[in-house]
Amino acid sequence: MSDDITQRIEQLIRSEDALDADLYAEVSEDLEPDQVALLLESLPREARLECWAQVPNEQRVDVLVEMRAEARASLLREFDSKSLDQLISDLDAETLIELAESLPGDVVDIALARMDERQRAHYERSAQYDEDAIGRYVDHDLLILPQNSRVRDAERLLRREVPEFTDHLWLVDRTGRFAGAVPVIRLFGQPDHLPLVELRDDEFESLPATRSLREATEAFEHAEVAALPVVDDSGLLLGRMTTRLAVELLHEHYDAQLMASAGLDEEEDLFAPVMRSSRRRATWLGINLLTAFLASWAIGLFEGTLQQVVALAVLMPVVASMGGIAGSQTLTLIIRGLALGQITTANVMPLLRKELSVGGLNGVLWALVIGIVAGYWFSSPMIGVVIALAIVVNIAVAALSGVLVPVLLQKLKIDPALSGSVILTTVTDVVGFVVFLGLGSLFLL
Amino acid sequence: MSDDITQRIEQLIRSEDALDADLYAEVSEDLEPDQVALLLESLPREARLECWAQVPNEQRVDVLVEMRAEARASLLREFDSKSLDQLISDLDAETLIELAESLPGDVVDIALARMDERQRAHYERSAQYDEDAIGRYVDHDLLILPQNSRVRDAERLLRREVPEFTDHLWLVDRTGRFAGAVPVIRLFGQPDHLPLVELRDDEFESLPATRSLREATEAFEHAEVAALPVVDDSGLLLGRMTTRLAVELLHEHYDAQLMASAGLDEEEDLFAPVMRSSRRRATWLGINLLTAFLASWAIGLFEGTLQQVVALAVLMPVVASMGGIAGSQTLTLIIRGLALGQITTANVMPLLRKELSVGGLNGVLWALVIGIVAGYWFSSPMIGVVIALAIVVNIAVAALSGVLVPVLLQKLKIDPALSGSVILTTVTDVVGFVVFLGLGSLFLL
Repeated sequence: MSDDITQRIEQLIRSEDALDADLYAEVSEDLEPDQVALLLESLPREARLECWAQVPNEQRVDVLVEMRAEARASLLREFDSKSLDQLISDLDAETLIELAESLPGDVVDIALARMDERQRAHYERSAQYDEDAIGRYVDHDLLILPQNSRVRDAERLLRREVPEFTDHLWLVDRTGRFAGAVPVIRLFGQPDHLPLVELRDDEFESLPATRSLREATEAFEHAEVAALPVVDDSGLLLGRMTTRLAVELLHEHYDAQLMASAGLDEEEDLFAPVMRSSRRRATWLGINLLTAFLASWAIGLFEGTLQQVVALAVLMPVVASMGGIAGSQTLTLIIRGLALGQITTANVMPLLRKELSVGGLNGVLWALVIGIVAGYWFSSPMIGVVIALAIVVNIAVAALSGVLVPVLLQKLKIDPALSGSVILTTVTDVVGFVVFLGLGSLFLL
Repeated sequence: MSDDITQRIEQLIRSEDALDADLYAEVSEDLEPDQVALLLESLPREARLECWAQVPNEQRVDVLVEMRAEARASLLREFDSKSLDQLISDLDAETLIELAESLPGDVVDIALARMDERQRAHYERSAQYDEDAIGRYVDHDLLILPQNSRVRDAERLLRREVPEFTDHLWLVDRTGRFAGAVPVIRLFGQPDHLPLVELRDDEFESLPATRSLREATEAFEHAEVAALPVVDDSGLLLGRMTTRLAVELLHEHYDAQLMASAGLDEEEDLFAPVMRSSRRRATWLGINLLTAFLASWAIGLFEGTLQQVVALAVLMPVVASMGGIAGSQTLTLIIRGLALGQITTANVMPLLRKELSVGGLNGVLWALVIGIVAGYWFSSPMIGVVIALAIVVNIAVAALSGVLVPVLLQKLKIDPALSGSVILTTVTDVVGFVVFLGLGSLFLL
């Protein structure tokens, strides 16, 4: 977005309560649907509705498709049946797939009933695949030819309107199965009557429709093409995945990971209603409360010691924090490695050795520093010794769990990015407190 | 990667000390350079060197380019001057740009001296741009024609070998300035003598070479093309950015963000030497130690209270943890919003109101739960009241800082993903301890 547009959008957002309609009209002319979607997401709910009222009818469907699900639903809920009717009057299969989850079931049925037969067939095929399968998101802007076509047929086809991202023509057999791709560029200078199969790119791959979004995206790191065909079990050509879809899915994937690490949903609306937002976050807080009580329980085992040596209570956060930070460094490296495919069961052992050595070195280094500071602070060398030992143990345990927790979660098919850090912190907190207060009970009473 | 290859790679990694050369030879035939790079990164350093010895000479440069910088450097360090000489005997500008940071300066000079004049000019132009500018990473596989060319010139050009991702021909004026793009597909069925300018796509954009990688990637979310031209200040065509580069840069961007959140570097080698790895992580641990001591100091203010009411020491982690978790939820939502451009100074106020309301609701809810549990646990209703009040205050402060900390960091041009969470935890820890122990001193002594 140009700075100028950004500034004018800021002005719009600032006008919050009473939307400046003239300003919107002026700005919106230069905006793509995804920019309008972002603008709407940036507005508190009332202002969002006002702004939405300004979006021209013909742009509305495109804007809704670009919005995150929750913000989109906030608009769709306000539709009366007439505007809903207008909205769904002319949807294609891909658009309906995107919007279906935000629409009432009967509206989806009406939209389907109004589609032409081909689009309906597309919809039904795509809807079979679940949310993590690429088959669900294909588009159908394909340039297809029967496999026995010739160069002249291809040239005729290319003179018509050609969909974006068309760098290959795709061949299909009589039953609609994908039968190879011909690079458009190879057509130049070829005799009219040459069969297209002779120009076929033999290395050209197709994507199974059941492939996960993540893996489908990876295919684009090798394939040097602008779009890949997506086929079902029997090889039937269902549609295509473009590089733009790959870029979009990548954004969503990473976005979801980031949000999941704080127990949030990628589709969450920035201005979700307070009640709904509170309820959702309460779950995550509740899970974390359990782990916090676990840590408290561990401390509670040593009430007597704490009463006599209050310095231990003062220093507890240092032990817990050093373990938590050291552990999260290892955890992050391992989660990344698992995601990239750098880490398999085969190299866990050498990795564990390395992380334990790194933890050992840093443990000893910081144990010395912390031991000396604590010893001086409380004028008690023995407190220094106790915290130093606790730090060494806790950082070593942190390294160990930083490697093992995500590897085990992955084995159990639980996303380590989601729950790895809660589990790790629980381990380092409990171990840290027990070791520190336990050693304190042994040496300081 | 097919499962079969993955399995055989696992076998290779498992063979750790003595690499199975036959197995490698068999596997590697099916591997792309980036897969070999990943395999090498997955191996402990000794096994990595053995495996590297098996990589055929003609694949080596491509593999090195695909590797993360630190792992790559671990291989390059072992090169004797003869193999280094062989490696750099035939580099193009893009490859040398990628490898330059891992090579000794004099080796780069030799490589430059051996390049042909055109490649050297490309290198020198790209090297002017810094690491975050797209100008540095362009490739030079362009199909260019003078702007007064005709359809027949284009067709002649297209009959030769055409670089991947060519969906447009680019026109340049006499001085080499970008003068528009012609979609290859529009050429079909056009008369030979038609000037290409008449087929030009008038909406076609070019990217300024100084544009940041992140913004350059965004351009591909709107442009429906497989490659975009990159131009310097004066409009001179420097090279191109393909969708594949966009996908690669996106991966690296998010990867870097993830690693930065734990104080790590994206280029970090999974099997970095223990000393180096320890030294790097020590910095982050040191920063966090300071914040932990700050929390300890806050607790230390209440030593007298803790001695008399040891239950407070036991419950401290609950107050700190609830604040930390609630804060990190808000923080994550805001960091995501800032990255997407959803949040500007214009909507910070309504956002703050919303997050404070959510925090207020959850604060009250969990304050009740925790208050009751704590009251029963220590058979003291007053302890329940004290912790309940502390939880309400700390969750509200968490919501406030969760919004303001990242927004301020962004204003100061500090990446909130890097330091946001350290600052936030410090705030919630210190505030939590002071409020909890302060209230304890007031009501329980």
